[in-house]
Amino acid sequence: MEKQHPKLTLVGAGPGDPDLITIKGVKALQQADVVLYDALVDPTLLQYAPKAIHIPVGKRAGKASVSQATINRLIVEKAKRYGHVVRLKGGDPFVFARGFEELSYAQSFGLETMVVIGISSVMLPGYYGIPLTSRGVNQSFTVLTATTSEGVLSQEVVKAAKSAPTALIFMGLGKLELIVGAYKEAGRGNLPVAVVSNGSLVSGTVVKGTVNDIVARAERAKPAAPALLIFGEGASEALANLEDVNADLKIQKIA
Amino acid sequence: MEKQHPKLTLVGAGPGDPDLITIKGVKALQQADVVLYDALVDPTLLQYAPKAIHIPVGKRAGKASVSQATINRLIVEKAKRYGHVVRLKGGDPFVFARGFEELSYAQSFGLETMVVIGISSVMLPGYYGIPLTSRGVNQSFTVLTATTSEGVLSQEVVKAAKSAPTALIFMGLGKLELIVGAYKEAGRGNLPVAVVSNGSLVSGTVVKGTVNDIVARAERAKPAAPALLIFGEGASEALANLEDVNADLKIQKIA
Repeated sequence: MEKQHPKLTLVGAGPGDPDLITIKGVKALQQADVVLYDALVDPTLLQYAPKAIHIPVGKRAGKASVSQATINRLIVEKAKRYGHVVRLKGGDPFVFARGFEELSYAQSFGLETMVVIGISSVMLPGYYGIPLTSRGVNQSFTVLTATTSEGVLSQEVVKAAKSAPTALIFMGLGKLELIVGAYKEAGRGNLPVAVVSNGSLVSGTVVKGTVNDIVARAERAKPAAPALLIFGEGASEALANLEDVNADLKIQKIA
Repeated sequence: MEKQHPKLTLVGAGPGDPDLITIKGVKALQQADVVLYDALVDPTLLQYAPKAIHIPVGKRAGKASVSQATINRLIVEKAKRYGHVVRLKGGDPFVFARGFEELSYAQSFGLETMVVIGISSVMLPGYYGIPLTSRGVNQSFTVLTATTSEGVLSQEVVKAAKSAPTALIFMGLGKLELIVGAYKEAGRGNLPVAVVSNGSLVSGTVVKGTVNDIVARAERAKPAAPALLIFGEGASEALANLEDVNADLKIQKIA
């Protein structure tokens, strides 16, 4: 028996700290019949949907997991069977998250769709006091992914290394040496760099340095994936004051 | 009599829709003694801080308002007098929002500081189903402001017009013709463009077109400031399906 009004709501859960979900995201969860959630999403968020069916569809770097095709199929199948599916995704659904594919697929099967935007990991530097823009320092930033869908170093990284005042690089920890090589080749060895790992989580760390020394520093600190790399003068002002932190010390819970 | 522990929390209120504040932002408001809030922040958010002193320090494009120096001074003065100041800012505190200046100033007077990151207007395209990144279409985007602090067209706009696959331009509505000129000069007349005005609010509108026709379309639709301009193939897939919307129709309240 199919539901009359199958519906998909894409919800951005934010970058890790479960209190960084929005009120709107919480309201969507409260109305869900089914929640399909990523591995990077804090499972305590499922408490907002106590009566819903909870289905993990986690994708983690380097581990076999539910395929995108299967996730798409599950969305449609569960919405037709139960009604309202909330697809709870880490960060924002539209930043390196394949939300648009899920939305389009669901629409092609007649589902009503809605998007609740979330705090992307793009915003994580601010969590540690590193401004994305700062008057008189930088007035732009570029967001990109280190590797293409074919797994090779993106040409956009090479371009950013040459000319982007501030670049935020996703999924780049495993390619750090290659990326640093591109910046060195562009003559930017003294550019400040920060590696934010598990940002906004208790396990989070920030490693800082310059293009010239960040590889050695990261080898010592061993930050875990996923990590966000920040290359740019835009970070330098804050970085001048910021020691490497074990983010425990920086995490400030609001009770 | 000065407070023993003067404190500043910068809170990003999100792009407009009051339900796009985070749980963490709400908790900070609940603990505030004083709230200094921007003109672009929905005043219903002050209901989360019913016992706090509420002080508007609104800055709106083109209107005289409280100076940044005065805001900085108020933060320190009120924190020393009352304790915990929450500085409630539209969007995210660190994206074209001078949050870093406020943070540094407060720290220089010995205030304890904390940042609650928020949903930047950078995320607004997603609100209307326009993905910031889409597999196979674009894997990067550049965020910039149209004008420098001196009020002239930023050289970064000229650079983005030449080479950025997707550019999100803040504070650019009044400079739309100049920006479009830079894209035409770069031979990108057919590039899709969207103008998101008052994004996520009931009064919001989305005007779409291409570099070649967006000025004429905007003249007819008369979107209000503030607006976010999106230039890029990254938007084209969604734009192909998206009619100009009066965002009333698209706003979906979760009761």
